[in-house]
Amino acid sequence: MSIAQNTETAAKLRCIACGATPDSASQDFRCTACGDLLEFFFPGRSFDPTSLKALWLNRRTSRHALDQSGVWRFRELLPHIPNLEEHAITLREGNTPLYRLPRCARAAGVENLHAKHQGMNPTASFKDTGMTFAASSAHQSGFRWVACASTGNTSASMAAYAARGNMHSLVLIPEGKISWGKLSQSLDYGALTCQLRTDFDGCVQILNDLVRQKPVYLLNSVNPYRIEGQKTAAIELMEQLAWEPPDHIIVPGGNLGNSSAIGKALLEMRELKLISRLPRLSIIQAHGANPFYRSVREFGGRKLEPMTADTLATAIRIGNPASWKKALRVLQATGGEVEEVSEIEIAAAKAEIGADGIGCEPASAVTLAGLKKLRQSGFVKPGEAVVLILTGHALKDPDFTIKFHRGELFADKPVAGTPEETEAAQAKYLQRAPVVLDANLGAVIAALDAADRNS
Amino acid sequence: MSIAQNTETAAKLRCIACGATPDSASQDFRCTACGDLLEFFFPGRSFDPTSLKALWLNRRTSRHALDQSGVWRFRELLPHIPNLEEHAITLREGNTPLYRLPRCARAAGVENLHAKHQGMNPTASFKDTGMTFAASSAHQSGFRWVACASTGNTSASMAAYAARGNMHSLVLIPEGKISWGKLSQSLDYGALTCQLRTDFDGCVQILNDLVRQKPVYLLNSVNPYRIEGQKTAAIELMEQLAWEPPDHIIVPGGNLGNSSAIGKALLEMRELKLISRLPRLSIIQAHGANPFYRSVREFGGRKLEPMTADTLATAIRIGNPASWKKALRVLQATGGEVEEVSEIEIAAAKAEIGADGIGCEPASAVTLAGLKKLRQSGFVKPGEAVVLILTGHALKDPDFTIKFHRGELFADKPVAGTPEETEAAQAKYLQRAPVVLDANLGAVIAALDAADRNS
Repeated sequence: MSIAQNTETAAKLRCIACGATPDSASQDFRCTACGDLLEFFFPGRSFDPTSLKALWLNRRTSRHALDQSGVWRFRELLPHIPNLEEHAITLREGNTPLYRLPRCARAAGVENLHAKHQGMNPTASFKDTGMTFAASSAHQSGFRWVACASTGNTSASMAAYAARGNMHSLVLIPEGKISWGKLSQSLDYGALTCQLRTDFDGCVQILNDLVRQKPVYLLNSVNPYRIEGQKTAAIELMEQLAWEPPDHIIVPGGNLGNSSAIGKALLEMRELKLISRLPRLSIIQAHGANPFYRSVREFGGRKLEPMTADTLATAIRIGNPASWKKALRVLQATGGEVEEVSEIEIAAAKAEIGADGIGCEPASAVTLAGLKKLRQSGFVKPGEAVVLILTGHALKDPDFTIKFHRGELFADKPVAGTPEETEAAQAKYLQRAPVVLDANLGAVIAALDAADRNS
Repeated sequence: MSIAQNTETAAKLRCIACGATPDSASQDFRCTACGDLLEFFFPGRSFDPTSLKALWLNRRTSRHALDQSGVWRFRELLPHIPNLEEHAITLREGNTPLYRLPRCARAAGVENLHAKHQGMNPTASFKDTGMTFAASSAHQSGFRWVACASTGNTSASMAAYAARGNMHSLVLIPEGKISWGKLSQSLDYGALTCQLRTDFDGCVQILNDLVRQKPVYLLNSVNPYRIEGQKTAAIELMEQLAWEPPDHIIVPGGNLGNSSAIGKALLEMRELKLISRLPRLSIIQAHGANPFYRSVREFGGRKLEPMTADTLATAIRIGNPASWKKALRVLQATGGEVEEVSEIEIAAAKAEIGADGIGCEPASAVTLAGLKKLRQSGFVKPGEAVVLILTGHALKDPDFTIKFHRGELFADKPVAGTPEETEAAQAKYLQRAPVVLDANLGAVIAALDAADRNS
């Protein structure tokens, strides 16, 4: 069974390392010549930018399912899928809000700060934008089974789209290392869910072996269709900003597919004259899962040393990121920066985003924590416009939030910081820790008055 | 852009029982004459339906925050808030998807079944549509503190909008009786969260006393601004259906504010000739929290006997629903029906909705379970068009999902059904219970092959 090919379009596959241009991808989406990743490119493509923008805007008033999707609305910039109307699997993904973050802006020392909240997708993470596209491709190719290894968000998304498209799905997740919410999603959508006694990177290895032996479609982000779908977040963002790019876009760095996708979209949009200049795309990793940060800082991007990852931001707990070379190219092409942040910095940044009325999962909050460091280093200037990409909803990991606000998050876990630093970071939030009271008016009024005095 | 706006507001308040029309509401939003609930009405309002529909559709292409909200986009049908641009607190709520449910349709025996998924709102429940409107009203009135009693969804929503509007929020929740996810949200958004040793109805009582003594704005659904905002879900639904009403709309029944709001919108839309006929609005309760069902079935709606509520569908675990008279009026005006469903029926229906690729919280699933009964009774005909209102996202209550798919949900809880019925309801899902495996290819292939044979 061969992966659907873009016969009718200009889209072609190319290996990012050796430049080979195969007619179709193998089951593991690796270059058969050198083993590196494939990507789509679009030789000779051109559009009238003004007409294209008008077409996309006009589709917002359409009742057609493809037009209502924030991914398929931009289908002119995606590879063609034959018989799309029959095979498209959509949950009306995309269409995510762009929020101003006034308090976070003050905390970070910038004047113009927005968050593009990809956690407002149907399964509550950015994965849906790539999944709608790749799952549709699997459907078009006639697969009965799809599969992924996941830290939780990919599996939730894949399970939903597979169910929607009448396909079966197999999920490989590291046992005990994904959040409860994410596990519940893959069960809810009917996936066959295997918790393996290994880490994320171990799950990836087994899955790669599996797809070579079984007719199972691989939906990890090495699948270049995933990257294409995820490009649309950046296109939608530019439309929301009236095609006036910000100075900086800041993205969490885990497996690095998302950075790659957003960067690819920026480069394509500039080439197509949809935007006139490039934002700098910067990538932030958790200190405990920082192989890309170390690759860039220590080796100038010449190599990446896999590591055993450890961070409470489970969505980016990845030690051997598949798309690191794609992300490196984006970083270099846009003049972006890498940064790493501590567990305490992540938790405090998440609470600050929450105080602006926006809930996100811990991995998303590395963007704000990283912005603070990029301000301190002078890489981001106070007057520059900054957009953070939030990748998951707060409900993806309620345990983290409850433990933090109860002062329990770091209780049984050493963090990169002294006990005093930990306490200081949590102190302002513990004033609002949940309290259990008897059901009487006096007790509630006392709690209210105390909080009012402290506010 | 002015469409004959009731400029300085034609909207007036009216008591639903004694008909008094106060100029303003008291702190507890109760009629000062008889103590019953207030509602907004709009004397002398009229619009050109075609122009209004065109205006609303056109706003979908706007970059203005109010136009991007699925609530404020329909502001012509809402009471006027002075200096709205300054006071509106919006998280781009509404704009929720309408999904076809093909498998659920087959299971229920209808041909044309959709779900309007209000769990796709920013805080992941339908509460956001009412909250944006009522919180903006609080802001316009100059309150520093807002408060609610909640089974969890209202508090999550209120905390987010309060934070967004720079107000403080007080949450009263029953200790140990709301889901973990919902508790985490009120903490994340910085609310003062008091877990009281009582049930939801006990929290309501204390809050009513509190707002009479303290300058705290009450954001429970007795607040008629909440109901007005929630009306927009029905307006948006009709727009999605090209203003062609379905035969049936089915809503979960808890505190009954949502049924009231959707029904009010339907009645107003017909009066304004935006739609030409009324769908029947039916209300489904959990058997363990069925005071409205009993009111209608046993007393013909003449009275409602409060009860101690008990159901795993925590969002509708309410024994003394505030808006029951409003809901009764809607039921009667649209010719709808009431129904009750068991815990097993709820869990099975939730899993069936999940298998269609749509995740919802348990309370939302009463709609599908209820539809099955309404089909069996003949109230819903096979060829009639049905829309289920899903009220919360699956991530609101991951514990329920995980326990169900592990076969543990009813282990320590007696349910309305024999052990055999419970087992039968769960059996088809337990084939896909999560499994823990060693990290080797053979084990995964064995699990895949077994699932494939059973599928």
